Amino acid sequence: MKCAIVAVGTELLFGHTVNTDAVYLSQQLNLMGIDVLYHYTVGDNPKRLADILKMAMKDCDLVITTGGTGPTQDDLTKEVICQVMDDVLVEDPHSLDRIIKHFERRQRPMSENNLKQAMMPSKAVVFDNNNGTAPGFALECEGKIVICLPGPPNELNPMFEESAKPWLMERSSEALYYRTIHTFGIGESMLETKLLPLIDGQTDPTLATYAKMGEATVRIASKRPTLEEARSAVEDMIAKVYDYVGEYIYSTEDESLPQVVGQKLISKNLTMSTAESCTGGMIAAAMTDISGISAVFERGIVTYSNGAKMDELGVLEETLAQYGAVSPQTAEEMVRGLKAKTGSRVCVSVTGIAGPGGGTPEKPVGLIYVGVMLDDRMEVFELRTNNTKRQWNRNYTMLFALYQVNRFIDEMTE
Amino acid sequence: MKCAIVAVGTELLFGHTVNTDAVYLSQQLNLMGIDVLYHYTVGDNPKRLADILKMAMKDCDLVITTGGTGPTQDDLTKEVICQVMDDVLVEDPHSLDRIIKHFERRQRPMSENNLKQAMMPSKAVVFDNNNGTAPGFALECEGKIVICLPGPPNELNPMFEESAKPWLMERSSEALYYRTIHTFGIGESMLETKLLPLIDGQTDPTLATYAKMGEATVRIASKRPTLEEARSAVEDMIAKVYDYVGEYIYSTEDESLPQVVGQKLISKNLTMSTAESCTGGMIAAAMTDISGISAVFERGIVTYSNGAKMDELGVLEETLAQYGAVSPQTAEEMVRGLKAKTGSRVCVSVTGIAGPGGGTPEKPVGLIYVGVMLDDRMEVFELRTNNTKRQWNRNYTMLFALYQVNRFIDEMTE
Repeated sequence: MKCAIVAVGTELLFGHTVNTDAVYLSQQLNLMGIDVLYHYTVGDNPKRLADILKMAMKDCDLVITTGGTGPTQDDLTKEVICQVMDDVLVEDPHSLDRIIKHFERRQRPMSENNLKQAMMPSKAVVFDNNNGTAPGFALECEGKIVICLPGPPNELNPMFEESAKPWLMERSSEALYYRTIHTFGIGESMLETKLLPLIDGQTDPTLATYAKMGEATVRIASKRPTLEEARSAVEDMIAKVYDYVGEYIYSTEDESLPQVVGQKLISKNLTMSTAESCTGGMIAAAMTDISGISAVFERGIVTYSNGAKMDELGVLEETLAQYGAVSPQTAEEMVRGLKAKTGSRVCVSVTGIAGPGGGTPEKPVGLIYVGVMLDDRMEVFELRTNNTKRQWNRNYTMLFALYQVNRFIDEMTE
Repeated sequence: MKCAIVAVGTELLFGHTVNTDAVYLSQQLNLMGIDVLYHYTVGDNPKRLADILKMAMKDCDLVITTGGTGPTQDDLTKEVICQVMDDVLVEDPHSLDRIIKHFERRQRPMSENNLKQAMMPSKAVVFDNNNGTAPGFALECEGKIVICLPGPPNELNPMFEESAKPWLMERSSEALYYRTIHTFGIGESMLETKLLPLIDGQTDPTLATYAKMGEATVRIASKRPTLEEARSAVEDMIAKVYDYVGEYIYSTEDESLPQVVGQKLISKNLTMSTAESCTGGMIAAAMTDISGISAVFERGIVTYSNGAKMDELGVLEETLAQYGAVSPQTAEEMVRGLKAKTGSRVCVSVTGIAGPGGGTPEKPVGLIYVGVMLDDRMEVFELRTNNTKRQWNRNYTMLFALYQVNRFIDEMTE
C-alpha cells in the first residue's frame, strides 16, 4: 500500500511549528509495511488543499491528513475531504455527545464553534479523540482511503495507536508486533554495518536503525496472520541482533538509559548520588526526571569550582595542584568523597573539558573522566570524544556514565 | 513572491529525520516578505521529484530544494532540476577546486563520487558550501527560480544566510533587518492578544509571535530600501512593543534566559550557586551550558532527600517536620543555608512537587517554592502551575527562577 501524508496548517508554512506528525506517522506506517511516498504541507486554503489531495491520490491509495480539524473558521479539512471524496458532512450524535461531556468535565463553557467538530462525513468510520475535542475518521471511496487526524501530536499519536492503526491492520487481516532496541557506544552507521547481514534482503521482520544524540536504536517489526507469530518472529530476530551487537544493548523495551537505570535502582533499592563538574547537573536532572526516583536518589552536587570540589567532596588541594581538576586522580577522589559523604551505594563523578574553550594540547576539549562506584567496586573511565561541541560532550558523558552504572548493576553478585 | 520548499530524501519519508530545514527556511522567507505556500517531501526518485517540481512551479515563482546533493548514487536533485529547467550540468572549476582542498585540509582521501558534486547547471549562480562538500545554486528560467541547497542544517543554514538570502534580497533591491524579542511570564496567545493593535493590519515592519516551552517570542522584521531605514523601523516597533508588554521582556537580542543571566553574572562578576530539589539539577545544567561560566558559577547542589537538605544546607529538622519539604519556610532555609555555605552573591533554591505523583489536596502537583537571594535581598516565590506534566513543571520552574535572578540583578543599586 502506498501512502501520502498531508499536513494542513498555515502555522507550519510560517515555520511556527515543526511537522513532527509526519515523522511519527512515517515511522509507524513503515513498520506496518506501508510505503510513504510523499509528505505535503499546505495552508488553511481550501483550493490548494483540494489540489494537493487529488494529486496525492494519483500515486497513493492511502492519504492521511493531519490538522485543520479545530473549531475555528480556518479549519476546513473535513469539508475539503468531503468535496474530493464525494460525501457530505452530517452531525454525528456520538461525537456531539462526547464533545459536550468534554466541556462539562472541565467545567468550561463550550462555544458554538465546537459544534462543528461533531460534523462527520456520512460514510466515515469515526475515531474518538480521548485527548481533545476533534474526532478523526477513515473514509473510503473507489479504492482510495483518506484518514483524517487532529494536528496536535498529543491527540494524533494516541488516536493513531488506538483507532487508525487497528482499523488499517484489520483491513489487512494481519497482526503487527514490534520492539525497539536501544544501544550505546556504537554509532548508527557502524550499527547498520554490523547488522547488514540481517538488514540486506530483509523481508519480514523488518529492521531499521535510527540515530539519536550519541546513541542508536534498532526497530524490529513483523506483520503476520496472528499476533503470536509476529511476536515470535520479532523475538527470534532480537536474539540474532544480540549475536551481532549484544554488548551494546541496554534495552529491548524502547527505554532510555535514565529509565533503565532508574528502574533498576528502584527495584533493587540502590541509593544513588552524583558529583558533577562539566556535566553541570545533567546526570542528576536526567535521573530525577524518573517518576518515583525520590525513593533512591539521595543527592547531586555540581562542584564547578576547585573550591567546591575540596569543600564538598574532600578532594585534596595537593591532588588538584599536582594533577589538575581534569584527571583520573581527581575523578577518583571526587567519587570516593561523595561515597564517604552520602553513603549512597551508587556514586558517580564527572570532571572534564566540555568545550568549546578550556582545552590545551595535553588536555584537549572532549577529555573527560568519569568515576563510578557501586559498593566497593570503583573504576575511573577516560573519555576522549574528539568533539568540540559543548552540548554533545555533556550529553554523551551523561549517557556514558549511566551506561557504566547499568553495567555495574548487571554485574553485581547478589 | 510565492515559494514552495521541496525536501528530497527517502530518509525523511521513513521518519528517520525531522524536516527542520523547512521550518528554518519558512521562518527566514516569511520575514523576508516571501509567502510560503507549500512544503513537499519526496524520496530519491527522479520521476516523482520532477513531477513535484513541475507542480510546485505552477503556483510559485520560487522553489527551494533541500537535500539530494550528496556524492552517492541516490543524490539526483541537480540532474532533475536541470531536466525541469532545461539546462545541463557542467563541471565548475571553482567548486572542484574547493572540494579538492576540503579533503586535503582534512587529510582524507577524496572518492570519485565527490567529483560529481562539482557539476553545476551551466546557467546557475553557484553558492559555496563552507561546512561541507556540496555547493548550492540559484537557477532562473522564464520567470521561475529554483534554489538548490544541501540537506544537513549545519550546511544549509549558513549557506542560506551567506549566499541565498543576499542573492534574493539583491534581486528585490531592498534591505532586511529583524530582531527577536524574548518574553517570560506571558503565554503566546496572551502575547498575541496584547500586541493585536500592532499585529492587526501590519504592513512593514511585520510582527510574528512564536511559542516555546513556557516562553514566548516576537519577531519583528522590516524590508526597506536601505539597512538603516529597516533597522530604524524595527527599533521604533520594539519601543512600541515595550509599551504593551515591556514588563515581560528579558531580551531583544534573541538570547535565552540562561544566556542573559550568564552574561550578566560574568560581566558584573557575580558568583552564583544553586540548591535544587524537584528541578534536580536543571538550573545548574542550564547555567553551566554557558561558555565561560566557570568564572562565576560556584556550586550546585541537588538536595533530593530531606537528609540532604539538612546535611548540605542546614535546613532544620523541626522546619521539615512542621512545614514539610515543600514550603516557603524550607525554601528560605535552603537559600540562606546555601548562601552561608558558599558565599555566592546569587543563590537560588527550589523545592516543589513536579508530578505526576506526590500531590495532595493541600499541596497539589505544580506547587513549587523558589528562593532567590542577591547579597542581602531575599524573596521566596510560590508557583502554582496547575500543570501535572513533570517535564513542563521542571522546565518552567527553571525559567522562572532565572527570570527572578535577572530581575534582581537589574534592580541592583550600584
